[in-house]
Amino acid sequence: MLVDCGSREPRFIEVVREIRNELLELAGVRQSDGYEAVPMQGSGTFGIESAIGSLIPDEGKLLVVVNGAYGRRIVQIAERLRIAAISLEFEETELPDPGAIDTLLRDDRSITHVALVHCETTTGILNPIDAVADLVSRHRKVFLVDAMSSFGGIPINVAEKKIDVLISSANKCLEGVPGFSFVLTRRELLENSRGNARSVSLDLVEQWEALEKNGQFRFTPPTHALLAFREALRELREEGGVTARYQRYRNNHTTLVEGMSGLGFESLLSPELRSPVITTFVEPDDSEFDFTKFYEHLAARNLIIYPGKLSRAPSFRIGTIGKINSDDIHRLLTAVREFSS
Amino acid sequence: MLVDCGSREPRFIEVVREIRNELLELAGVRQSDGYEAVPMQGSGTFGIESAIGSLIPDEGKLLVVVNGAYGRRIVQIAERLRIAAISLEFEETELPDPGAIDTLLRDDRSITHVALVHCETTTGILNPIDAVADLVSRHRKVFLVDAMSSFGGIPINVAEKKIDVLISSANKCLEGVPGFSFVLTRRELLENSRGNARSVSLDLVEQWEALEKNGQFRFTPPTHALLAFREALRELREEGGVTARYQRYRNNHTTLVEGMSGLGFESLLSPELRSPVITTFVEPDDSEFDFTKFYEHLAARNLIIYPGKLSRAPSFRIGTIGKINSDDIHRLLTAVREFSS
Repeated sequence: MLVDCGSREPRFIEVVREIRNELLELAGVRQSDGYEAVPMQGSGTFGIESAIGSLIPDEGKLLVVVNGAYGRRIVQIAERLRIAAISLEFEETELPDPGAIDTLLRDDRSITHVALVHCETTTGILNPIDAVADLVSRHRKVFLVDAMSSFGGIPINVAEKKIDVLISSANKCLEGVPGFSFVLTRRELLENSRGNARSVSLDLVEQWEALEKNGQFRFTPPTHALLAFREALRELREEGGVTARYQRYRNNHTTLVEGMSGLGFESLLSPELRSPVITTFVEPDDSEFDFTKFYEHLAARNLIIYPGKLSRAPSFRIGTIGKINSDDIHRLLTAVREFSS
Repeated sequence: MLVDCGSREPRFIEVVREIRNELLELAGVRQSDGYEAVPMQGSGTFGIESAIGSLIPDEGKLLVVVNGAYGRRIVQIAERLRIAAISLEFEETELPDPGAIDTLLRDDRSITHVALVHCETTTGILNPIDAVADLVSRHRKVFLVDAMSSFGGIPINVAEKKIDVLISSANKCLEGVPGFSFVLTRRELLENSRGNARSVSLDLVEQWEALEKNGQFRFTPPTHALLAFREALRELREEGGVTARYQRYRNNHTTLVEGMSGLGFESLLSPELRSPVITTFVEPDDSEFDFTKFYEHLAARNLIIYPGKLSRAPSFRIGTIGKINSDDIHRLLTAVREFSS
């Protein structure tokens, strides 16, 4: 992060090349298998919009399977871009029903693309990409997965899982700093999507073509964030890769849920729905509990949690990803105990 | 750059507030004068697209005054967004003719917005925003200035200069690191532009509304780049503000042009057209000169220059902005002399 590196210098071009190759490797594929990794400046939402707006043609129609705020955001993006889109909505605390998706895909033959959020951090629910991917593939549609909060922390092989497009970000499970997102996709899809893009800045195909042509971004990339990301990928390798990181996150999550339960905080979702990424806790049924005071008590100890995103019940969320381990979770639990007593 | 700061933490919100206020101050205006500063994730082009795509209504029509690649890029953005646009093209080595702009604005009453690049780094030419602003204001059109490579390094008072929208970036004359751009504009324009945006990620109005509501970006900002930017603004104040920085850049430029001339490299533009930001030199009329070898000779000494962007004559460009002074320019001149001898 302390190195200034010109974005058109050979050494920076080499960093970008390494990052693109390593992202594919993390997804279990290679360029020689026909896959490409395309980084995009901005936050994760910029990456999602870049994929939706570049890969779906004018005559396409997107089905978004929704059980949280991030699914709804994909619908909003498609509508803003004037791409035909329908959403199939499920309860935020329930898994999407593959049967209903199957029926809809059978009934509406105009659907060309299907999008699903892997880990919906609205609640922390982990959606069943395998089951949906099988369905989507059987119907010969293009499957897009918003893996913003899961890629790098939960093993995903995009080829085995029949994922056509996976979008994720530098600063979640890959533990980089914010500044860019990236799209992993089949090269054929990029090649067939020329001229689709509704934006110049977010044109994923032109971004890919420039990177292939001379290794450079079209427009100034966040060079320091990319240099930091190469370091983050090295740390991931040193930790033992995605499987080891998944175990650490799972361990964080289990330690958190058990400890919080002992302090009277129950998690919203049943265990089989929960991801190791972020956990929603229901506010205690106690008129004394004040979330703002709770947040500030923890923040004063450098422990940052999230407010809830649910409308139906007062709740809050605690993330268990990032460079933290069970010692940090125990430190958090101690601070929660102090607040409660 | 080494501090991790959550984007929704009060201390980060305070950093963003400070930055927004200080950007206005640099432009000679305040919120209480009806001006707003809205940062946008991504490179400068993302900021340009965000302004064009959010502030021009469906029934609007954009005139782009073009004398280089960055002017042409604005036309490309408007076309991609399906915004009616025409360009008035001038030679890359000549200033736009205000008379021609005046005539066009009189002849085509459907034009609602006019865009001009202040410092067109294709050549380094400094375009006459004053003269064009007067014209545009007289015709009661909205004036957008791409001040990517000038803001912070060349004094600009947006109110005095009748600039309605100014777009610039963190990593040029303000000497921050890349990761975001920003738009300075009149609040009234933002208020009247609700619902225009062709993109969710690049919706300038929603970005502004979120920042006003709770001080937060809608989507994850490049936190480290913003923290670094606050530091960069502090350095600008310590240097003596924009006027002092302008003097340093001018001095860099003059030292460079005089030194290069002594080594047989003539600058492309006549003196009155040149900016202190970047200078185009014509390749010597010598079949021995090899730009790639020249570039590598300098790069090996950590001196990074730019290839030319002109089609009509072989040329190269040397930037004189950033944390450099005349000592650095002399070091460059020494290296150029070594190469030439």
